Amino acid sequence: MAVSFELIKQCSKTGARAGKLYTPHGVFETPIFMPVGTQATVKAMTPDELKAMGAGIILSNTYHLFLRPGHELVAEAGGLHGFMHWDRGILTDSGGFQVFSLGSLRKISEEGVAFRSHIDGSKQFLSPEKATEVQMALGADIIMAFDECVPYPAEYDYARQSTERTTRWAERCKRAHARKDQALFGIIQGGMYKELRTASVRDLVSLDFPGYAIGGLSVGEPKPLMYEMLEHTVPQLPARKPRYLMGVGTPDCLVEGVMYGIDMFDCVFPTRVARNGTAMTASGRLVVKNAEFARDFRPLDMDCDCYTCRNFSRAYIRHLLKSEEILGLRLTTIHNLHFLLRFMGKMRQAIMEDRFPAFRQEFWDKYQGH
Amino acid sequence: MAVSFELIKQCSKTGARAGKLYTPHGVFETPIFMPVGTQATVKAMTPDELKAMGAGIILSNTYHLFLRPGHELVAEAGGLHGFMHWDRGILTDSGGFQVFSLGSLRKISEEGVAFRSHIDGSKQFLSPEKATEVQMALGADIIMAFDECVPYPAEYDYARQSTERTTRWAERCKRAHARKDQALFGIIQGGMYKELRTASVRDLVSLDFPGYAIGGLSVGEPKPLMYEMLEHTVPQLPARKPRYLMGVGTPDCLVEGVMYGIDMFDCVFPTRVARNGTAMTASGRLVVKNAEFARDFRPLDMDCDCYTCRNFSRAYIRHLLKSEEILGLRLTTIHNLHFLLRFMGKMRQAIMEDRFPAFRQEFWDKYQGH
Repeated sequence: MAVSFELIKQCSKTGARAGKLYTPHGVFETPIFMPVGTQATVKAMTPDELKAMGAGIILSNTYHLFLRPGHELVAEAGGLHGFMHWDRGILTDSGGFQVFSLGSLRKISEEGVAFRSHIDGSKQFLSPEKATEVQMALGADIIMAFDECVPYPAEYDYARQSTERTTRWAERCKRAHARKDQALFGIIQGGMYKELRTASVRDLVSLDFPGYAIGGLSVGEPKPLMYEMLEHTVPQLPARKPRYLMGVGTPDCLVEGVMYGIDMFDCVFPTRVARNGTAMTASGRLVVKNAEFARDFRPLDMDCDCYTCRNFSRAYIRHLLKSEEILGLRLTTIHNLHFLLRFMGKMRQAIMEDRFPAFRQEFWDKYQGH
Repeated sequence: MAVSFELIKQCSKTGARAGKLYTPHGVFETPIFMPVGTQATVKAMTPDELKAMGAGIILSNTYHLFLRPGHELVAEAGGLHGFMHWDRGILTDSGGFQVFSLGSLRKISEEGVAFRSHIDGSKQFLSPEKATEVQMALGADIIMAFDECVPYPAEYDYARQSTERTTRWAERCKRAHARKDQALFGIIQGGMYKELRTASVRDLVSLDFPGYAIGGLSVGEPKPLMYEMLEHTVPQLPARKPRYLMGVGTPDCLVEGVMYGIDMFDCVFPTRVARNGTAMTASGRLVVKNAEFARDFRPLDMDCDCYTCRNFSRAYIRHLLKSEEILGLRLTTIHNLHFLLRFMGKMRQAIMEDRFPAFRQEFWDKYQGH
């Protein structure tokens, strides 16, 4: 099997668990955060910088790579790993989320989604078969079924029909998938309706995917509602398979996601806010562009040992950001990713030592928002 | 003495020479190219990347740092070295070139130059004394006298008056300079008039600076005219002191500058064209954004061992640049600086082995423009 999951430790009081994810490009400890490299690059980072901070799997986007530079070109380059010079894990999403986000520029049918490229306006079409073909060419270790992310809010009938179609599409993806060295994950949908989530789990689990993502959360709903959906959905998933919560990457949601039994996460949050000049710390965000840091010669985060915090001050980073210098957002990106990867490592350690509930309590006692 | 120069080898047939520049932050082999870090950062690079490619001295800009973040703040941070975390050599220019480039926004008097900030329009004033005070606060190893760069073309009378004022200003800079751990270089002006160049050399050499820059070249004049000025001016400078040709950094001009006896160069060229997607190679430029490189999986330069060329293809770098990804211009910047530093190293080697004229001939045989 291309990808397998070993459950190492189950928290005795919550759903939290520690595991190992085996892939053709390495074995990675879970729970894991996957930095996002939308266009075959984690924005502003080299592969070596990602390795230095301990990144294991990164995520890249089928939609973007399909349009530019094209999956055939990436395949010629030896797949995404060769193209971008990254020899650790890669997960590609299916492009579903991006094409559905195009709004009026796309049209859904049972067959697939017709849309216009955001780059040149050209007519394009993605179907379960096409999205799978593209992802086979890209050659990631883990690829995702082509789904519709049910928007929030959504009427019950729409959510039901969409979720049922996602299941039919998942089946078509599975039939189209023909690379033994990569794993195809199914994506649970169902909107904010528990019975639809239950049906989605039931149907997709019957298709026996090697891993399951939970999609359609963190799409604008209140956080308590997301947590309610996780509490309802995650325990229904097979314990011996990896669980991936898509699009989640703020510290609070990571802690809660882990508590409910999620193993994998991805989000543009840490890299995006870094480029806007915000540093993540254990006690909340630090907007380093603010005037109060002009003469502050301390590191971004007193509790951090990343390249940025070992060598550069808030005052210098603020100067770089105010001067629109690339090094500024490189340094904040390094810090935020390092912070988040270390944060995941600490959660894993707490699970291994069966003290995750105390870790979570401590986190919430200190946390002031992000 | 803060900075001294040791002449190691003189070419037997041309003015080319190899030397060593001793500074409080290391000893650097000449001829040397100094990457430009205008706003206390060489654009897109970390200090460690610069070190890895063997950079010795970098240049930073008094005008920009005076306006933002301000020299007092930099001094508080431990000077430029501490502020930007760079423990090798730094040279700051005097700000003269930048304020004179402001055109209608500045007004020259014998006292100095009144101008408006390009950032917020605020009224500012730089004089020889102020520029020296600012540079003392910044704390570079080598600082420059406040001069007027005679524009091209310039009438004889203007060039003469301007050059004479630059001499008077150089004297004022020298009187104002009071840091024994940094060296103040004088700047030869004189426009394209040989007798004014001769007078400028005579006057500045009588002030006994520890090094001399040649300013007012590479300002739009035809290259043969620049070479004529170098041929005329450089031999008049004291052999035992370092000679710095300001604003020059294309391979052809570097070869010719070295031939006439220049030891130090700086230019934004390699980093600026890198950000525009142009890679420098021994046989000329490679515009990697061009469509012909879309499926070219070779490195930028077959003859290069830089981080970029060891790990990434033209096709990938083109994709990054087309997608406006920061990694694209990071990779081209690394390559161009590495290329140019290695190019300087090869010239030095040729001088040491007394085969510089053959090196130069080979260069011109291959060179196709940049």
